[in-house]
Amino acid sequence: MSGTDSHSSLVVVVMAGGRGTRFWPRSRNARPKQFLAIVGEETLLHQTVHRLEGHVAPERIFVVTTEDLAAETRRMLPELPEENVIVEPEGRNTAPCLALALVEIEQRFPEGVMAVLSADHWIGDREVFLEDLDTAVNHAAKARELVTFGIKPTYPEIGYGYIESEGQGPVFKVKAFREKPPVEVAIQYLASGRHYWNAGMFVWTLADFRAGLQKYAPEVLAPLDAWVEAGADPAALSAAYSQLPRVAIDVALLEKAASVAVVPTRFRWSDVGSWPAAIEFQVPDGDGNISQGETLLLDTHNSAFFGGKRLIAASGVDNLIVVDADDALLICHRDKAQSVKQIVERLKADGRDDLL
Amino acid sequence: MSGTDSHSSLVVVVMAGGRGTRFWPRSRNARPKQFLAIVGEETLLHQTVHRLEGHVAPERIFVVTTEDLAAETRRMLPELPEENVIVEPEGRNTAPCLALALVEIEQRFPEGVMAVLSADHWIGDREVFLEDLDTAVNHAAKARELVTFGIKPTYPEIGYGYIESEGQGPVFKVKAFREKPPVEVAIQYLASGRHYWNAGMFVWTLADFRAGLQKYAPEVLAPLDAWVEAGADPAALSAAYSQLPRVAIDVALLEKAASVAVVPTRFRWSDVGSWPAAIEFQVPDGDGNISQGETLLLDTHNSAFFGGKRLIAASGVDNLIVVDADDALLICHRDKAQSVKQIVERLKADGRDDLL
Repeated sequence: MSGTDSHSSLVVVVMAGGRGTRFWPRSRNARPKQFLAIVGEETLLHQTVHRLEGHVAPERIFVVTTEDLAAETRRMLPELPEENVIVEPEGRNTAPCLALALVEIEQRFPEGVMAVLSADHWIGDREVFLEDLDTAVNHAAKARELVTFGIKPTYPEIGYGYIESEGQGPVFKVKAFREKPPVEVAIQYLASGRHYWNAGMFVWTLADFRAGLQKYAPEVLAPLDAWVEAGADPAALSAAYSQLPRVAIDVALLEKAASVAVVPTRFRWSDVGSWPAAIEFQVPDGDGNISQGETLLLDTHNSAFFGGKRLIAASGVDNLIVVDADDALLICHRDKAQSVKQIVERLKADGRDDLL
Repeated sequence: MSGTDSHSSLVVVVMAGGRGTRFWPRSRNARPKQFLAIVGEETLLHQTVHRLEGHVAPERIFVVTTEDLAAETRRMLPELPEENVIVEPEGRNTAPCLALALVEIEQRFPEGVMAVLSADHWIGDREVFLEDLDTAVNHAAKARELVTFGIKPTYPEIGYGYIESEGQGPVFKVKAFREKPPVEVAIQYLASGRHYWNAGMFVWTLADFRAGLQKYAPEVLAPLDAWVEAGADPAALSAAYSQLPRVAIDVALLEKAASVAVVPTRFRWSDVGSWPAAIEFQVPDGDGNISQGETLLLDTHNSAFFGGKRLIAASGVDNLIVVDADDALLICHRDKAQSVKQIVERLKADGRDDLL
């Protein structure tokens, strides 16, 4: 276990600009996944920040989000200094997002080691997470390598990128980043013991990050450096930002860098990509049901009720996912949760922007 | 078909004091079945009164209800003169209710023929109903008999009383009223062709009704007559009413009367006793679904959605009944609708009067 001061140099950047309606009707354009309490009582954003409590001081925690989500993000995190919520003029993928964080942070914490986390992932074991974070921070500070986290695959997922490792642990060398594989390849990766899911969490010194961007992705950094040199006028950021390429940090930097390390994680992790994923990590009652909010269940099994303001009474139903929102209600078979996408598309086609 | 003036003597009394929570979460103590739009777009009370439009003038339509439901009843029926909503100080079954209607109405319409209807029954065929009503009114006026309506049984229901008929139609003689039968007897009744369900709808002249009560149930009438003689002070009604026995009109009068007639009905009828009954008389879409309010249904069959204010989206579900109310949501298998009773009992036991 790590104490508060184990890494006086640690600075955390939480990426919180995510979008998506896979958790419709709870998630909306203006209320993306990180703002939802879909696993546990707290929102994923709260969980991400509160997980660091006692380990990282609030003034060393930064959240990057977009203009339209900034007010709600600040409201949800009153413990952070207001200026620690960094506002992107628009979402342009993760490389611009993290480059902006770099130029905002490096003058305040020039010796900082920067850990990049996602606001909308679920992590099951706080202490283990903090230990793994320490391992990565130590390695980044001492070996001066870019460090990624690798999640041990539990099934042949085809929707994630993979990290192929080599060498000896506890910190491995990245042999290669592998794109989303076809299922046959994913099965091989799962069997190899050397492949990890790329969860988009990174640790590096601010200096190494700057050097890496300057070398491999100067087009992501130069317009921001020019903006800072010109006085960092907030009103001028939009123009600078619009020059940045829309590119992921993996592509812009990590896949090109000479030497990247990977820390295999030991904590339970999920990017909570769908309603069934939100259910998976919760402990059901004796009938296999999960209840959020008040429920009254008779002869009901293997179902999940995401209520809140209203009582949900159910009788004689199995394998349902029920999601109650103020202006819409979703009832779907547990195996049909992917149809949320169809529902959202239908609402779009019908011009029901009020529900999106 | 009957025109407006076919029975200038007709006066209708709609009994609207019903209680019950079988349509929970829509029905509540303060919002019983007659106030709900569960079959069609109108409430059952609206349907009952609007069915008479053009046939009975508003000033000849009376609604009897209890104190706590009177304001809402008047609000729902602005076309009726306010004094035509007759207020029982408390519910004491149908004999006191109709005796009160008698003393309130007979001075305004001394020559009246009174038809007694229920506010919370569904009737499928308006024109046929009006024809059957005419038949009963003509018989009551000319033959000076008490007339009941008999519903042709379609299955061996054990929850209703039966009327055994004899003689020739179209208006038959009542041979006997039969209590709720065991199922073996109900099967015999169904086969006999002479037995009808007693739906609690009656027609009689006000004079014959008074004479019948005076002869067979003077204890139901005398305290009300005394109240009228003393000036019919509304504040004194409660004391008079509390003296009346709690008894049904069938028991107090019809089962004792020497000569009662029965008009077999030809209209579709339901007392709408449960959610499945509310579904039975609605026309489903091609997938067997019934939607009230806005729904978005994917791969969903044989289900009923009682929505309203919010969109209900469903995917991959079958045989569900979904009822959306402001403060509670019911989701039950179509074959488990009787468990609404258990749910209501549990809420009572839990002291959740706010939901009852």
